Amino acid sequence: MTIDRRTLIAGLTGPALAASTLIAGEPAAAQQAGHPAPANPSLDEQKDMHDRHMDAMNKVLGQGLWGQEEIAMLLYPKFTALDLVAPHYFFACLFGAKVHLVTTETDLSPVPSDLGLAIQPTITMADAPANLDVLFVPGGTEGTLSVMQRADTMDWIRDRGSRAKHVTSVCTGSMILGRAGLLKGRRATSHWAVRPVLSDFGAIPVDARVVHDGNVLTGAGVTAGMDFAITLVELLRGKPYAQALMLQAEYAPAPPMLGGTAATTPADVTGMMGEMFAPLQTQFRALAPG
Amino acid sequence: MTIDRRTLIAGLTGPALAASTLIAGEPAAAQQAGHPAPANPSLDEQKDMHDRHMDAMNKVLGQGLWGQEEIAMLLYPKFTALDLVAPHYFFACLFGAKVHLVTTETDLSPVPSDLGLAIQPTITMADAPANLDVLFVPGGTEGTLSVMQRADTMDWIRDRGSRAKHVTSVCTGSMILGRAGLLKGRRATSHWAVRPVLSDFGAIPVDARVVHDGNVLTGAGVTAGMDFAITLVELLRGKPYAQALMLQAEYAPAPPMLGGTAATTPADVTGMMGEMFAPLQTQFRALAPG
Repeated sequence: MTIDRRTLIAGLTGPALAASTLIAGEPAAAQQAGHPAPANPSLDEQKDMHDRHMDAMNKVLGQGLWGQEEIAMLLYPKFTALDLVAPHYFFACLFGAKVHLVTTETDLSPVPSDLGLAIQPTITMADAPANLDVLFVPGGTEGTLSVMQRADTMDWIRDRGSRAKHVTSVCTGSMILGRAGLLKGRRATSHWAVRPVLSDFGAIPVDARVVHDGNVLTGAGVTAGMDFAITLVELLRGKPYAQALMLQAEYAPAPPMLGGTAATTPADVTGMMGEMFAPLQTQFRALAPG
Repeated sequence: MTIDRRTLIAGLTGPALAASTLIAGEPAAAQQAGHPAPANPSLDEQKDMHDRHMDAMNKVLGQGLWGQEEIAMLLYPKFTALDLVAPHYFFACLFGAKVHLVTTETDLSPVPSDLGLAIQPTITMADAPANLDVLFVPGGTEGTLSVMQRADTMDWIRDRGSRAKHVTSVCTGSMILGRAGLLKGRRATSHWAVRPVLSDFGAIPVDARVVHDGNVLTGAGVTAGMDFAITLVELLRGKPYAQALMLQAEYAPAPPMLGGTAATTPADVTGMMGEMFAPLQTQFRALAPG
């Protein structure tokens, strides 16, 4: 197995190794700050550290340490950035995996999300790998309704999804999968506000944060992307790997107040939000295949 | 108070209003799918819905519904994207707030994060507002060590931070604030792997996910950005607003396995990760002001 140093630096051991590398190249700045610079590790010392870390990881994480997954994450205008960026963190830390940010547009210009923040894609739908280990689709509101009405995008999702080992989504991304016909007979979840609409697409709505049925893995609204991604990492690489990434991401959530579900939110807030989201159910329902 | 319709569509009521708008413009596609399109709301009907939602929100969320905060979020090469994108979701849903994505570079090219995903900035440091309500700095590893050695960036952070109402960070972003001298005497947190180093920057390290001391609000590693952001939304706009956004983001986390802290992770995984991260402490420590 070839160890790709660039992947390594960007991945699981990145912090320690990258830091050594950086200081090796820039000891002067640290010395200027009035502190003794740490010992400047030689290339041999860096290689030793690298080998030690790889040995330690192999021992703890086992055979699943390296993989070659092809992972495609779809960027379409007005997608919800957090739906995608949270899973991306975990996927990009899988040694050896290739994570493609696939634009629905014809060039690689940054794709604007629903809240303005634009992310640069790495590949077009046409150039994306034909066979995927993971197809991932984020959610949104008007952008999601819009992309569900684009034949080119739906054809691409249907094609890649028909062969992907894992067909996945976060939030209303499951509406897109449903529209592509990929959820028929599958238990699935979505954002709470539109979850019941899954049945219009032939799926079985489940009131859960992460739902796994066959090759379909769906997450609930927006922040469920973390719980979703950790579940998928465990499926792909095993539990120790997933726990290593949870620790790296310090994922021990502690919401500062009760909330996040209709049941745990004060009734007046839940009522207001429910009323505002209600029309969205109708709009998604209108796009279910006949 | 002027209601900016564009902000509104992108914000709290976005889903419902945007969906109505979209279908109003594109009823044909829904009809083609073999379903009756929902009634196509007239402009008057849309305005009525808008007014009803605004009334409902005003009633529930109170006086804090609208604001005019100037929020600057720093993008530097190899920052951790999730550190920034999670808080961005919540900040961008504050009605009336201006959220600036400030690049440390001289042009507005997408800034690459540590895991490759690149985000487009909206403004340069030079053009960013002089007086900020919120200064936010994300973390990273080699990119963070690197930016801490750039005089232009540290000068900008020191200047904006000296007047900002809220000086904030997620993950190792607190090392940057510390280097700028903004944490002196403040209780603060950081990624678990480097938290003790905060004392080298004159701060008081606290083993907590979110720490608030005076005008300084810091979050722990990566995924703490959500708990951090909700805390800040409550400070800026009150608890009902924060709960409305938690519900919109469906933030009721349910990690699929125990983990995320050194104590809750299996000892072999924790030991391996601790050893790999250890050198990073030394590197950050070397950059503490003398």
